[in-house]
Amino acid sequence: MEESSSSSSQKKIEEEVSRLAELAKELQDSASSFISNSTTEEQSLRQRALAIDSNLKKLHSSVQTGAIDRKQAHKVRARCILSDGDGASFLPNKSHGRFLKMFLGPINVRASRKDVQLKVKEEYNSYRDRTAFLFLLFPSTLLLLRSWVWNGCFPALPVQLYQAWLLFLYTSLALRENILRVNGSDIRSWWICHHYCAMVMALVSLTWEIKGQPDCSHMQSDVQLFLLWAVMQGVAMLLQNRYQRQRLYTRIALGKAKRMDVVWGETAGVEGQLLLLCPILFVLQGFEAYIGLLLLKNSLVGVVSEWQVVVCGILLVVMAVGNFANTVQTLISKSRIKAKMRKTKSKQELNQEPLPKSL
Amino acid sequence: MEESSSSSSQKKIEEEVSRLAELAKELQDSASSFISNSTTEEQSLRQRALAIDSNLKKLHSSVQTGAIDRKQAHKVRARCILSDGDGASFLPNKSHGRFLKMFLGPINVRASRKDVQLKVKEEYNSYRDRTAFLFLLFPSTLLLLRSWVWNGCFPALPVQLYQAWLLFLYTSLALRENILRVNGSDIRSWWICHHYCAMVMALVSLTWEIKGQPDCSHMQSDVQLFLLWAVMQGVAMLLQNRYQRQRLYTRIALGKAKRMDVVWGETAGVEGQLLLLCPILFVLQGFEAYIGLLLLKNSLVGVVSEWQVVVCGILLVVMAVGNFANTVQTLISKSRIKAKMRKTKSKQELNQEPLPKSL
Repeated sequence: MEESSSSSSQKKIEEEVSRLAELAKELQDSASSFISNSTTEEQSLRQRALAIDSNLKKLHSSVQTGAIDRKQAHKVRARCILSDGDGASFLPNKSHGRFLKMFLGPINVRASRKDVQLKVKEEYNSYRDRTAFLFLLFPSTLLLLRSWVWNGCFPALPVQLYQAWLLFLYTSLALRENILRVNGSDIRSWWICHHYCAMVMALVSLTWEIKGQPDCSHMQSDVQLFLLWAVMQGVAMLLQNRYQRQRLYTRIALGKAKRMDVVWGETAGVEGQLLLLCPILFVLQGFEAYIGLLLLKNSLVGVVSEWQVVVCGILLVVMAVGNFANTVQTLISKSRIKAKMRKTKSKQELNQEPLPKSL
Repeated sequence: MEESSSSSSQKKIEEEVSRLAELAKELQDSASSFISNSTTEEQSLRQRALAIDSNLKKLHSSVQTGAIDRKQAHKVRARCILSDGDGASFLPNKSHGRFLKMFLGPINVRASRKDVQLKVKEEYNSYRDRTAFLFLLFPSTLLLLRSWVWNGCFPALPVQLYQAWLLFLYTSLALRENILRVNGSDIRSWWICHHYCAMVMALVSLTWEIKGQPDCSHMQSDVQLFLLWAVMQGVAMLLQNRYQRQRLYTRIALGKAKRMDVVWGETAGVEGQLLLLCPILFVLQGFEAYIGLLLLKNSLVGVVSEWQVVVCGILLVVMAVGNFANTVQTLISKSRIKAKMRKTKSKQELNQEPLPKSL
């Protein structure tokens, strides 16, 4: 009895096993045919996208002079279809860049589906929000504790923890921004470069000994200045994030921005708020350069003799100058676009402008 | 004359523009239909893979006791089809883990095509090769320069550069290994955890001031020991890489290993070479623990009073113990598998073993 029940259950199991093996075989077949079919189809889409893109580029360079509105409109439409629609997924990959390759190896981080790309961008923006909050909280806590608890003298550990956090933060921001760029975002390369500088600075500052005794307040004045600047930076980041996001949504609604654009470009803001933000940004940049120069002066005069001081000073000045140049560039290109739009408008109103003679 | 030529060329351009717009429109349509079709198909494949996988798991747990060879064989076949073939791409994604999310955000790093996954793994192995070389070169150069150029006293900068390089190296290894795991590699989680510890240690050692004067050779003896250990580690890494790769290729050829397995698992080696490698590994682990305990002793006795000494000491001991435990575990599981194989073989020879009564 037991024997037969065992053998019947064994038979059942054997049947189940061969059924599953059969199913797995079928799955394997359809999976590999799916993969090979979709690879072929993808390749043909890629070729078509590439052909259209190169034709558009040729056309663009041949029509560069002169502003023929209807053509422009057509062209823009064709370009939009390619750059914002599903077709864009099949344009050749932007290069991943050395930074990503260095950290991640040759893995592909480009999402082929638009909704996934948008999710990545959304997450980046909310990461920046959370980060800005910490960016404000961390240095202000240190400054408060310094005057309330630590009697005007930073202990090394909390400051070093903060520096390690900065290193992690800038590394992850640089990685995420490189990933965004691969996914078609228009982020300015300076902001990524800026984060590379900030990474190096955080790393260098970690090796920089926080001197306590004998003359604490004098030796640590640089640290204090840096933390003050970080607090200001945190406030500016919060303001920026808030209103860049508003601005981006407005621009997307108006069809002026692609949805993969980031909240980053400091000055692409709503007019009224720009009047508030621009001075803050310029003051920050000035302050950044001031701290940098102060460090350089200290090292030249010989108050502090460590190489870290020189490197941090140079990096701060470079970042301040770069930030300033990029902010000004953005402002100029904004005003140019505005002037163009005004011109086009008046042209349309006159409707008499002679066409350019030769194209 | 000029007027008419300009208008004809203008017409040509207009035609070209509308042609391109048409093409872009078509591309957009076929791209979006391709994406939606392949998404649907992918989903159905995913469901089928999931169903087979859960049935296999059920079956596995019901047949767990007893070794019925034919069934086993079938089962293994079904499992192989699922886990190694194209079907495996459609099993639910392994979780990306917090580490990857922290650095990269929610981007998907799983390659759907098998050949891309294999490329990622190949690149990881060659990265390890290049790395092992540097891992040997860097500390031995420092040690040589110390006795030849620096008169027995390390300057801070080169050591700190080395520490920064270690931090980068361990971060990128941890990132790459997490990516490999998402792509279906069987890497032991301890090795990843080990790299997290090593990252923390590199970070902590960066904040640790390299003391020069007054008593250089005494203050820097820990650094020297650590560098010596790193040299040994470099040699061991080179040996391991060389022969793990050989071993992996043998195992793949024998069908015993999946191609996504890594060269890492320290002890899964060819018998003869294992006799060479095992002692080296155990000596390394012992040396690692010795340095850790020495650091802890120094901090307890009060020779050095910095917190970094304690943390590095603890981390070194933890890593040594973990490495030792994992090496031993791997050896035990190896010998178990071997014993089982021997048993199965003798069973097959006897072919008389009674079947288990109840399943």
